[in-house]
Amino acid sequence: MTTATLSLSDLTAAATTAARISAAASDAERAAWLTAVADALDANSAELVEIADSETRLGVPRLTGEVARTSGQLRLFAKVITEGSYLEAVIDHADPAATPPKPDLRRLLKPIGPVAVFAASNFPFAFSVAGGDTASALAVGSSVIVKAHSGHVRLSERTAEIVTAALLGAGAPEGLFALVSGREVGTALVQDPAIKAVGFTGSIPGGRALFDLATSRPEPIPFYGELGSLNPVVVTAAALENRSAALAAGLAGSFTLGAGQFCTKPGLVFIPAGTTFAADLAEASKDKPALPMLTGRIAEAYPGGLHSFAAVPGVEVVSGSVDQDAAANGAAPVIFSTTAAHVLDRPEELLEECFGPTTMLIEYTNQAELAEVLAKVPGSLTATVHAEPGEDVASVVEQLAGLAGRVLFDGWPTGVAVNWAQQHGGPYPATTSLFTSVGATAVRRFQRPVAYQDAPESVLHPALQDANPLGIPRRVDGKLVLP
Amino acid sequence: MTTATLSLSDLTAAATTAARISAAASDAERAAWLTAVADALDANSAELVEIADSETRLGVPRLTGEVARTSGQLRLFAKVITEGSYLEAVIDHADPAATPPKPDLRRLLKPIGPVAVFAASNFPFAFSVAGGDTASALAVGSSVIVKAHSGHVRLSERTAEIVTAALLGAGAPEGLFALVSGREVGTALVQDPAIKAVGFTGSIPGGRALFDLATSRPEPIPFYGELGSLNPVVVTAAALENRSAALAAGLAGSFTLGAGQFCTKPGLVFIPAGTTFAADLAEASKDKPALPMLTGRIAEAYPGGLHSFAAVPGVEVVSGSVDQDAAANGAAPVIFSTTAAHVLDRPEELLEECFGPTTMLIEYTNQAELAEVLAKVPGSLTATVHAEPGEDVASVVEQLAGLAGRVLFDGWPTGVAVNWAQQHGGPYPATTSLFTSVGATAVRRFQRPVAYQDAPESVLHPALQDANPLGIPRRVDGKLVLP
Repeated sequence: MTTATLSLSDLTAAATTAARISAAASDAERAAWLTAVADALDANSAELVEIADSETRLGVPRLTGEVARTSGQLRLFAKVITEGSYLEAVIDHADPAATPPKPDLRRLLKPIGPVAVFAASNFPFAFSVAGGDTASALAVGSSVIVKAHSGHVRLSERTAEIVTAALLGAGAPEGLFALVSGREVGTALVQDPAIKAVGFTGSIPGGRALFDLATSRPEPIPFYGELGSLNPVVVTAAALENRSAALAAGLAGSFTLGAGQFCTKPGLVFIPAGTTFAADLAEASKDKPALPMLTGRIAEAYPGGLHSFAAVPGVEVVSGSVDQDAAANGAAPVIFSTTAAHVLDRPEELLEECFGPTTMLIEYTNQAELAEVLAKVPGSLTATVHAEPGEDVASVVEQLAGLAGRVLFDGWPTGVAVNWAQQHGGPYPATTSLFTSVGATAVRRFQRPVAYQDAPESVLHPALQDANPLGIPRRVDGKLVLP
Repeated sequence: MTTATLSLSDLTAAATTAARISAAASDAERAAWLTAVADALDANSAELVEIADSETRLGVPRLTGEVARTSGQLRLFAKVITEGSYLEAVIDHADPAATPPKPDLRRLLKPIGPVAVFAASNFPFAFSVAGGDTASALAVGSSVIVKAHSGHVRLSERTAEIVTAALLGAGAPEGLFALVSGREVGTALVQDPAIKAVGFTGSIPGGRALFDLATSRPEPIPFYGELGSLNPVVVTAAALENRSAALAAGLAGSFTLGAGQFCTKPGLVFIPAGTTFAADLAEASKDKPALPMLTGRIAEAYPGGLHSFAAVPGVEVVSGSVDQDAAANGAAPVIFSTTAAHVLDRPEELLEECFGPTTMLIEYTNQAELAEVLAKVPGSLTATVHAEPGEDVASVVEQLAGLAGRVLFDGWPTGVAVNWAQQHGGPYPATTSLFTSVGATAVRRFQRPVAYQDAPESVLHPALQDANPLGIPRRVDGKLVLP
C-alpha cells in the first residue's frame, strides 16, 4: 500500500477502521501479528540487507545486526503486551460508606488511534518502516502509516510489502499498516484529523517544524520526536591518569562508529586540562577509515559542520582534516579540542550537533567550571561519566541525569539495549516528550487512559473483570496484585 | 511569598533550588510535607471556607466538603509516593552472553523540575492553590509556583500562607511553593526557562493561548490543561420507559449542581424521540433555585450563552428563561431541546459549552443517527450511558470511551472520586495530554524517566539498589516483584 495506489484520505479511513478492529483484538492476537512480522523480516533478511546496503552504504554486518535488532524489538513488544502490565489495569471497588460514597471505578489504557511514523535516515530498519515506533504502536492496538525516508525508498517499499503480507497472513485487518512517501504527504499526515499521534526520528529543524504543526492543529496531538543529541562525556582526572589509552581507544571506536551517524554519538568530551588525552585519541583514531555517509546530502553537510567548528576562536583541530570531500571519498574522522572557557564564551556555536565522525574535546580546569559548562549543554539522549572506583561523582551524575535520559558509567553511549529498563529520550531537543522510543515502555506513547464507573462486567475489558481472566498484574483497591 | 515581595526571577531561582533539594529528599520526607499541608488546611477549614464563600458564593456546605477533599488529595498522594510504584523502578541486570552483550540498566522516574499551576475559578480549593496539580507536583519532588485565580485572590493568599507555613514547619525547603497573581505574570511564568511543566484548569480560549505559549517556547514544555467538556449522556429507550422520572430527578440534580459550574456538568443528553422526558425534566427542575455564580463576569456570560442556543433553528426552550439577569438574581436553570438532525446541521453552534445550570436534550430517532451525532461530539472528561440491565450497549460504550476519559453507567458525572483508578482527562479539548489531573496517576505528569547504565550502587537511588531498601514494587529482569 503506497500513495501510488491509494489517496491519503483512503489510507487514513482504512487506518481508522483497522485501529478499531485492532483495539478490539486480544493481546494474544496482536502478539501473533508482531511475531509474524518479526519472522518475515528474519526470513527475508538477506534480501533486505542487500537493498539497504545499496541505498545507505552502512555495510552488510551492521545492517544484518540491525534486522535482528528490529525483529527482536517486535518480539519484545509481543512479550510486553502478553505480560499485561502495559494496560495499567486498576480496580477500585465501590465504597458506599465513604463520604461522599465512592463508586466502582476501573481504569485501563486504550490505544490512541491511527499513528503516523516518520522513518529515520540512519537506522533503515530499527527506526524505520518496521522499527520501534511502528512496533510499539501496533502492539497496543493502533494502526500505523509510515512516511518513508527519502534516503532508502526502495528498502522502505520492500519492507512494507513484507510487513503487509505478514500482517494479513497472520489475520490482522486490512489498513493496519501503510507506507507513504514524499515531504508533502508527510506534512498532510501530521495535519490529518484521523491521525492521533506522531513518532519521528530525525533532525532538529525538520522535527521542530512537524512538532509545531502537530501542536498547532485545531485538535493538537502528541508528537514524539527524537531530534538531536550531543551526548556529553565527562572524564575525571583519576580515570585519565589510570587508563588514558584505553579511554582513547573506546572513544575512538564510539565516535567513528557507523561514520558517526548515531544519535548517541559522543559529541562532547569533557577532560581535565593539561593531559595527553588528545594525542592518545588522535593515535587511537588514526587508522579509522573514511566511510561513506548515508546520503549525498548528509555527506555534503559534514565538511560544512567541521568548518563551522574550526572557525570558532579557541578551537583547534587535533587530528583529521576539515577540508575533505566526504561525498566523494567518505567521511574521515576529525577531532577538535577547545576549553570550557571558550565554550562558555560561545555556547551556541560550539554546543551544536555535527552529524559525522567528529568529536570535541573540552578541557576543564576545575569542578566548578565543569558544572558551569555542563549547565549550558542542551538536553541529550545520553550522558556518560568515566571515573575510578570509589571516586565521589555524585554531583556530576546528578547534573548529567538532569540533562539526559540515560546516564552511563565507564561505557560508551553508542549501542542502545532493547529491554524493559531502557530510556531513549531526554530533555528537549533530545526528544519532545517524557517518554522513550526504545524499550518496553515505548508503548505508553500510544495509549490513553479510560476509567469505567459502575460498569456491568459484560461491557468491561477482560483486564478489568473481577476474575482477571487474562491473568495480568493489576492494582486492586490500592494494592498491586500479581496473577 | 507573592510578587509583592519577590520578583518572578527570584521566585523561579528559589523554585529551582528547592526542586533540587526536594528531588533529593526521601519519599517519607515529602509525604510528611504533604500531610502537614493537609493537616493545616483541615485545622484552618472554618476560616478558609468563610473567605472562600465571600469570594465565590459557593456556600459553606460545598466549600467545607471541598476543603476535606483537598486535604484528602494531599493524603492520597502521600500514600502514593510511600507505596513507591510511582517511581516505576525497573532493573535489567547485565547479560554478557547476549548478542550484543547487554549492560546493567536501571530506570526510574525523576521529578521534572519547577512546575507552574494555574488555579481554577470553580474549585477554589481542590483545583486551586493547594489542589491536585500542586499536590501531585510536590509529591514527586517538583517545586510549584501557583498563579492565583482572580476570582478568589484573598482566599488564594491566605491558603498560600497556610501552605507555606506548613511546608516550612515540616522541614521543606524555602521556595518549594510560591503564589503569584496577575495575567501578565502568568504568561511570563509559562515562558520562563526555569519552569518545566504547567498545570492548568480553565477555559478553552485561555487554556489554548497558554498551551500555544508552552509549545512554542524554544524548549517546549508539557502543558497539562483541562479546558472544556460537554459530558454527553445517552439514555436508551428501555431506560426511559422504566424510570423516566428517576432519570429526570438525577439529571436535574446534576446539571444544576453548584449553579452548573462543574467541568463534569452533563451538557448534552441524548434521548429517544417521542418521549415525555422533557416534561419530566422540567418538572424535576422547577424548584431548583437561581444560584449566584462564581464571578460577575461568569454571571454576565451565562445569558449570552443561553441566547446563542435559543437562536439556533430547531432549538426549543423546554423550561426556564433565557432572558435572565444572572448577575443580579443568580443563574436559574434552563432546559433546551432539539433533535440530532439539527445538531448534525449546526454542530459548531450546538456542541458548545455553556457554563451554568443549563443542559440540552437531543432527540435521536435510531442507533445509526445516535452514532452519527456522537461522532461530532468533541473530546470530553466524561460520557454516561443509562440503560437497562442486559441491554446490549457495547457499541455505544465503545464510542463513548473513544471520546471521553471516564465512562459512567447509570450515574451522573458530577462528583469525581479521588482514588487510584480515577481518570479526569479526555481527548482535546477536555485535556491537552494523555494524563489525568485527579487520582493517583496524576503524579506521572511531573516525572521524567532516567536510566542508569552500569552504575555503581553508591550513586543509585535506593529504589534501584539490588537490596530494595525502600521495599517497593519493581520490575526486575522483566518480572514484577512485590516487596
